[in-house]
Parts: sequence; C-alpha cells; structure tokens
Amino acid sequence: MSNQYADRLVVVRDVDSLRRRVRDWRRDGLSVALVPTMGALHKGHMKLMDQAQKMADRVVATIFVNPKQFGPNEDFSSYPRREADDFELLSAAGVHLLFAPEATAMYPAGFATTVSVAGISDVLDGKHRAGHFDGVATVVSKLLLQALPDIAIFGEKDYQQLVLIRRFVEDLNIPVDIIGAPTVREHDGLAMSSRNAYLSAEERVKAPALYVAIAGAAKDIAAGGEIEATVEAARQKLITAGFDSVDYVEARHADTLAPLTNTSNHGRILAAARLGRTRLIDNVPVPIQQGA
Amino acid sequence: MSNQYADRLVVVRDVDSLRRRVRDWRRDGLSVALVPTMGALHKGHMKLMDQAQKMADRVVATIFVNPKQFGPNEDFSSYPRREADDFELLSAAGVHLLFAPEATAMYPAGFATTVSVAGISDVLDGKHRAGHFDGVATVVSKLLLQALPDIAIFGEKDYQQLVLIRRFVEDLNIPVDIIGAPTVREHDGLAMSSRNAYLSAEERVKAPALYVAIAGAAKDIAAGGEIEATVEAARQKLITAGFDSVDYVEARHADTLAPLTNTSNHGRILAAARLGRTRLIDNVPVPIQQGA
Repeated sequence: MSNQYADRLVVVRDVDSLRRRVRDWRRDGLSVALVPTMGALHKGHMKLMDQAQKMADRVVATIFVNPKQFGPNEDFSSYPRREADDFELLSAAGVHLLFAPEATAMYPAGFATTVSVAGISDVLDGKHRAGHFDGVATVVSKLLLQALPDIAIFGEKDYQQLVLIRRFVEDLNIPVDIIGAPTVREHDGLAMSSRNAYLSAEERVKAPALYVAIAGAAKDIAAGGEIEATVEAARQKLITAGFDSVDYVEARHADTLAPLTNTSNHGRILAAARLGRTRLIDNVPVPIQQGA
Repeated sequence: MSNQYADRLVVVRDVDSLRRRVRDWRRDGLSVALVPTMGALHKGHMKLMDQAQKMADRVVATIFVNPKQFGPNEDFSSYPRREADDFELLSAAGVHLLFAPEATAMYPAGFATTVSVAGISDVLDGKHRAGHFDGVATVVSKLLLQALPDIAIFGEKDYQQLVLIRRFVEDLNIPVDIIGAPTVREHDGLAMSSRNAYLSAEERVKAPALYVAIAGAAKDIAAGGEIEATVEAARQKLITAGFDSVDYVEARHADTLAPLTNTSNHGRILAAARLGRTRLIDNVPVPIQQGA
C-alpha cells in the first residue's frame, strides 16, 4: 500500500517544490528527464513520456499553456485544456511528477526578460507568428532552469522549435541534454497534434494531404528533383487537396534551417497550411540518397 | 609542498574544466562563489574577492572582456588587459580558480542567442550605450550557467548592471544568489574603475567632483530637497567642475530604476559624465531620512 502511494503521480505548482524534488532525486543518483508540454495530451506526447522512461530514472512532465508564445490573433483562449484527463494519462504512464504552474507563478509582476534567437526565430513559422519563438525560448529556458533535469525531450513535430531549443541551450550553456523524438502519426499519416481537435469531419478527411505532399516532396528531392520546383509542386498539391491557404512549404538544412541548396546535405521539408480556422504544421526528413 | 600546489590558483579556459571543478567542489559539500570581471583588477575587484572568501568555501574569478557589451564607437580594443598582473593579485588573495576564456569559446560560430531585459536596459546607461545591457545579460547568463556557483558577487559601482542581473536571474530562474558589494573609493571619493587609467593627471584632479556632486544631491534629497531641481543642480556642478559633458544625473528607485518621485522610497542617485575621452559612472544611495 505505502509503495503504491510512493509511486503515484504527484502534482506541484510552484518552482521550489519542483526543484527540491528533482534535486533530491539527483542527489540520490537518479537521472531525471523533463518533458515540457502544453497539455491536451495525445499519443504523440505519450511517446515522449515512454522515451523519457527509457532514458532516465525519473520523469517530470510539465503542462503550461504559455501566453507568451501566442500572438494576439491566435488561439490562446481556445487552446484545449484538459488537466484531469492529462493527469490520468500521465499517471497510467508511470510519470513521477507533473509540474503545472499558474501563469502568475511563471510571469509574476515585474517580469521583464526575453530569450531570443536570431535567424532561426525569423523564418518559416517565425515569419507567420511574430514573437512566437521568443515566447518559446523564454518559457523553455525557464522550465529547464526551474527543473534542472539531466535531459529534456521535445517532439520533432515542432521541428523549428527543436532546432531553436538546441541553439539557445548550447549558446547559454544551459546544463541539459536536448533529445528530439520522432513525430507520431495517425494511420492516414496526419501528425498527431492537440490542434487536430479543431478540425471538422470534412477538414479531417483533407488533413492528411499535408503529410502526403511533404513526404512526396522529400522523396522527389532525394531522387534528384530540383528543390524549388518540387516544393512549389507540393504547395500546389495542398491547394488542390482543399487547404484554404499555405503559409509555407520549404526545404531547409536540418540543423540550421538555412535554405537547402544541395541534396547531399542533411535536409528537412517543413510546411504550414490552413484548413478553415485550423493551422496545421508538419515536417519530414529528406531521405539520404542510396549510393549518392 | 604538495599542499602548497593544491592551494595555488588554477587557470582554466574551457567550460568543461570550469564546470567539472565547481561540480566536484559542490559534490564535496563546499560552497562556491563566482566573481565575474573584465580584468585590469583594482582594489574594488579585490574587495569583491574578499567578500567571496567570507561567504563561500571556494572562489572562482572570471576575466572576460566581453565584445558584446561594447558599442562600435566604444573602448573595446583599448580596454586595459593585464592578465599576468591580475593572476598575481588573485593568487595572493587566495582565489581558487580563474576562468579566462577566449572569445571563440564564449561565442563560437553560429552563436545566435540574446538575453534582454525590457525597461531596465533602456534607461540611464542603456540610453547612451545601445545594446550594452543585452551584451551584459547574455554574457552573465552564460557565466552563471557555465560555472553553476551558489552565489555570484557584483559591485554596486555598476549599479544598473546589478539591478539588471537580479532581474533576469529571477525571471529566468537561474539557480544562484546574486550579492551586491559596496563601491570602493579612492581617498578623494573617486570610485575605483579600470577606466580611471585613461585619465590624464589634469582630468584625475577633476574626477572626484562626480562623487561630490551625487553625494551632495543624495544628501539634499534626503533633507527634503525637490528631486528634479536637486539633480539638475548636480548636473551644473559637474560642468562647473570641468567635466566636458554629462550623460545623465538621475534619482531613481533603487530596486526598479523607475524615476524617484517620493523621498520616502528607497532611492539611488546615478550619474555618467565625460572627462576628455573617458566616460565615468558612479552612484550613491539616498540616505533614509532620520525620523521621517
């Protein structure tokens, strides 16, 4: 009985409690993985938790819908919040600690600091979501420094975010290893996302075309297709498939997000497109050419 | 003999060596103080080292003339560099470790991150030194996260810098206690500064008028003098004393640097003025009124 309670998921909402618990674990020689989320957990998140369980002795999940990474016309107020469901999922997955702070604990009166990353923040999603990546860099810096884990795990679904986080963690010497985890997809290829809940039945039928278009473009580029013509064809396919608009489809260097100019480089196709009121993003690696 | 060598000052130039040594000390239960400097050490710096010795078991000094905190028309290239002299002083003071990285170790190719603090960075020195405080916030964030000490000590001489550091350390949850140490002055009141070396003999005679003017203003405000008239009088005194120009003399709230509107608040007088090619800064507290 007592063992059952010792293993149950604990929720903390203040930094001191979080830090004390992680510090005690590390003092006892246990490694700690952090998995930051905005909640509304799905199978993609749970895959991150599984990976954390495999890589560390203790797993800390965080749920915080960060106001600083939403623009004034974005979906901050409507973003799905389901903390009780999330708690059940995390508990069943054997996660040890959930940190779910209030916004006032993260950004008390007088808060004035921003972490920003030149270049990476200004392209792709950064062009379409002003201030978004400053908000991400600032809150992820805080979460890493609040928890002080050994590793932190982020999904490749938000690929630009992952590149950004690796950059500022290295630049600021934040003492943590950043781990990227592969995107989890529905059976028809649609990348799992909390925002998929916004899709109507009709939109849900069209949505997998995003993955189909970029996976096809990645394959074509790997096979020697001209880069700009190939991504332009993918943009056209999205409109044909019923997307209302395409924010971008781009071929980029996977490590720096600089434009991909050479198929022998490590490439990534990234895209964002809109179905009604829902903005979907996705990305895939450009396969390495066999015998290239 | 072996003990003599175990206690001697060690110099490291890479982050891994720094971090390993501090981690080992902390693992052994020893507390660690960090004292960041730009070198060209004087008695003011050595007072910081003394304070560090009193507050912690091990003292780490850093010397890094940070290019990011100098503007294009400032004195980066002429800033005094005397590493051998500094080494002797630190060694004699019993400092345990000197971290003196190359610029390429701090800012390798691809470096892209900035830590910035809204408000505090834009006033006083920030108005006259565009980008200065972004450079300070970024490099101090790095030094704190590279060393991971228990405490870090900064002089009140750079008072705006101290307020800035306290702000972003709290905002980003950097796990360190920031300690401010009183300004050390020459016998005639001039605040000790590496930049005093720039002064000609004639300028050196005029320089103490900066301290005299702001100390007088602080006393007058504490005695009930009208704030704006008092600081304006101090500005005039500096010109009369032979300063070539006055960047500012201001009365500010000591914690936030908001304009001081009420003498019952915790106030600070801050000033910057130029003697020839030398820009001097100084600051003093507004004494608390007795019986107020």
